[in-house]
Amino acid sequence: MALIVQKYGGTSVGTTERIKVVAERVKKARANGDDVVVVLSAMSGQTTKLLGLAKEVGGTHRGREMDVLLSSGEQVSIALLAMALEDIGCKAKSFLGYQVPITTNSSFGAARIESIDTSAIDAVLKEGLVAVVAGFQGVDSDGNITTLGRGGSDTTAVAIASALKADLCEIYTDVEGIFTTDPGVCEDARKLTKISYEEMLEMSSLGAKVLQTRSVEFANKYNVTLMVRSSFTDTDGTLVTKEDSDMESVVVAGITYNKDEAKISVLRVPDKPGIAVKLFKPLTEADINVDMIVQNISHDAHTDMTFTVTKADFDRAMEIVRSSAKELEASKVIGNSDIAKVSIVGAGMRSHAGIASKMFEVLSENDINIQMISTSEIKVSCVIDEARTEEAVRALHAAFELGTQEAKEEVL
Amino acid sequence: MALIVQKYGGTSVGTTERIKVVAERVKKARANGDDVVVVLSAMSGQTTKLLGLAKEVGGTHRGREMDVLLSSGEQVSIALLAMALEDIGCKAKSFLGYQVPITTNSSFGAARIESIDTSAIDAVLKEGLVAVVAGFQGVDSDGNITTLGRGGSDTTAVAIASALKADLCEIYTDVEGIFTTDPGVCEDARKLTKISYEEMLEMSSLGAKVLQTRSVEFANKYNVTLMVRSSFTDTDGTLVTKEDSDMESVVVAGITYNKDEAKISVLRVPDKPGIAVKLFKPLTEADINVDMIVQNISHDAHTDMTFTVTKADFDRAMEIVRSSAKELEASKVIGNSDIAKVSIVGAGMRSHAGIASKMFEVLSENDINIQMISTSEIKVSCVIDEARTEEAVRALHAAFELGTQEAKEEVL
Repeated sequence: MALIVQKYGGTSVGTTERIKVVAERVKKARANGDDVVVVLSAMSGQTTKLLGLAKEVGGTHRGREMDVLLSSGEQVSIALLAMALEDIGCKAKSFLGYQVPITTNSSFGAARIESIDTSAIDAVLKEGLVAVVAGFQGVDSDGNITTLGRGGSDTTAVAIASALKADLCEIYTDVEGIFTTDPGVCEDARKLTKISYEEMLEMSSLGAKVLQTRSVEFANKYNVTLMVRSSFTDTDGTLVTKEDSDMESVVVAGITYNKDEAKISVLRVPDKPGIAVKLFKPLTEADINVDMIVQNISHDAHTDMTFTVTKADFDRAMEIVRSSAKELEASKVIGNSDIAKVSIVGAGMRSHAGIASKMFEVLSENDINIQMISTSEIKVSCVIDEARTEEAVRALHAAFELGTQEAKEEVL
Repeated sequence: MALIVQKYGGTSVGTTERIKVVAERVKKARANGDDVVVVLSAMSGQTTKLLGLAKEVGGTHRGREMDVLLSSGEQVSIALLAMALEDIGCKAKSFLGYQVPITTNSSFGAARIESIDTSAIDAVLKEGLVAVVAGFQGVDSDGNITTLGRGGSDTTAVAIASALKADLCEIYTDVEGIFTTDPGVCEDARKLTKISYEEMLEMSSLGAKVLQTRSVEFANKYNVTLMVRSSFTDTDGTLVTKEDSDMESVVVAGITYNKDEAKISVLRVPDKPGIAVKLFKPLTEADINVDMIVQNISHDAHTDMTFTVTKADFDRAMEIVRSSAKELEASKVIGNSDIAKVSIVGAGMRSHAGIASKMFEVLSENDINIQMISTSEIKVSCVIDEARTEEAVRALHAAFELGTQEAKEEVL
């Protein structure tokens, strides 16, 4: 008998038909003898609809009342699931954030969980009931409703799994697991059986948007084993867990890409202390996130700086950078929004040399020019021409033999 | 400076446009220097929609989870109004039932308010904010969400007005006040300036569905002055308050009618103790409400019993009564669903004789046959042929001179 936390996202509870399917799945787990805590998101579309209503009355910013509004979404889904469970003879009790309680700080719209009192859920489980918990929401020390921000239901699930010392935290979504790359780009993309937290973090922050980054960090920190799987099928998903010897032998776990970035280069900046601050502080102040930053070695006491921002921020960023460049007496600012970032991710890189070279070689062989390079311990990213993205992903996926289960370990 | 509780029903907050109108009205009251507590229903249609979702997952009965579901409706409306108020520079804070807290018993779907802690609302008012409170919902002593049943927002408003010792409780609705009769039937129906709690109770329970009966009882018990008015216009509504000498001079306040009843007669029942129990207990057990009951004096140790039920319950009631009648050895059961109940209501009846006779006379003059009669201290009801309802109402409205402001006091 295990204690399992199951988290279902918006599409998994998007209709009453889907909610009934979830109820059957929960019942099956109970029939296996497991204790089950279910964490739910709002029905898909609901949050967008509520935000639309808020906008119509002039409520556009984060704040206390926005959280009161948005938290009504999970309130509906947990009540409906509890009813659906009762209807098929599976006793259940729903919990709003304040009823658990899940205590957070008071950062409305982006609250952080501070503590979870598990006594009420424990009592319900002991009675043989299923606990159905509203994701995404909590309560601050003054009794105000708070929300954890978009995707916060994943975080709720992981935090509850950690607090309850659950054996497993299943994250149900509309994909079957984590794939070696986008199956829409590579036909032979393969579902991973297992992946480490670190790899998952690099994969998700690089654009494979299955799990919220924060929830993976949380799972890593508190050592909660996750299983990402589909609520639409019965096949096993991908286990996200701590790195083990098994994983180290796998050099590259996956290939990701991100077409949502644009590149800005500032040429011939005088190379003296404080340049980076003068360049990036105005961007931070304008709430523009900078992703990759590359600074080359200097020539004649001048250097070139290149960095990427999201395509949505590109025009605003160019304007700000042009004005900073003038102050810095840089010679020129060049922008390019037709770029993409392609990355290889794998914990095994730590112990295997030559992975980056192999990536460069593959791109070169395919006549794809590398415009920027950035590396971390378990990731290598290259910025290339956006038009060549799919080609690059396919070539790398094949070169690192990710499509075939067998040959993976023998890449190098 | 007064303390005013304003309650807005579903149609008054049915769209974001309407919510903005409500915000402007609240702001105006604040500008007058009044402290304002707003109590809201869910946006119109929302409760029906949620009940539809519940039905789809098999959740059809009252219970804990139904209350979790339904209470999300007011959560949306209070958040939106608080945002709309902030947007026009009127600071506000929303309160869910548990945040006030409004403590109730644990009768899910039909909870009774046990106590209201006003300290949180008091504090908010002291800070100069508007308190926006979710109607219809409360919390039981175990922290479960409860609801007061349909129309419960009126009860919330009155209970809060009583707890806060508010100067006035305004009930905003889609009608301009309480009328002498249905304006759809009598063109010269007149809006009443003032009406007593007792009259209001008789008017509303008889079919003038503006205020929930329970909230009027509550207002009467705790002496809360109500003003029923429209959120669509600026004209004054009808004051519902305790009876005063002014009112006593008004003999008949209004004429009501109800076409939703059917009549059942059980003929020649042996007149011995326990008949009524044997007849009505099975109906009660089948959840069928009996309204008027008339028993005539007995002849030859036999009597006739006649009573009314709603048209919706008529067929079921007939079936049950037929079986009871057999046991009771009654000679016959006759049912008639083509009836209507017409009533005259007025606190002044207490001190004026002959009102009932006048009613009978008017109906007789118009050749309308009276099938049943029932009287209370401030009301006389007659059951007549349904087809003659409008005619009867118009004749009575004219005879008691309700259409003209001036002549009312001189009826008798």
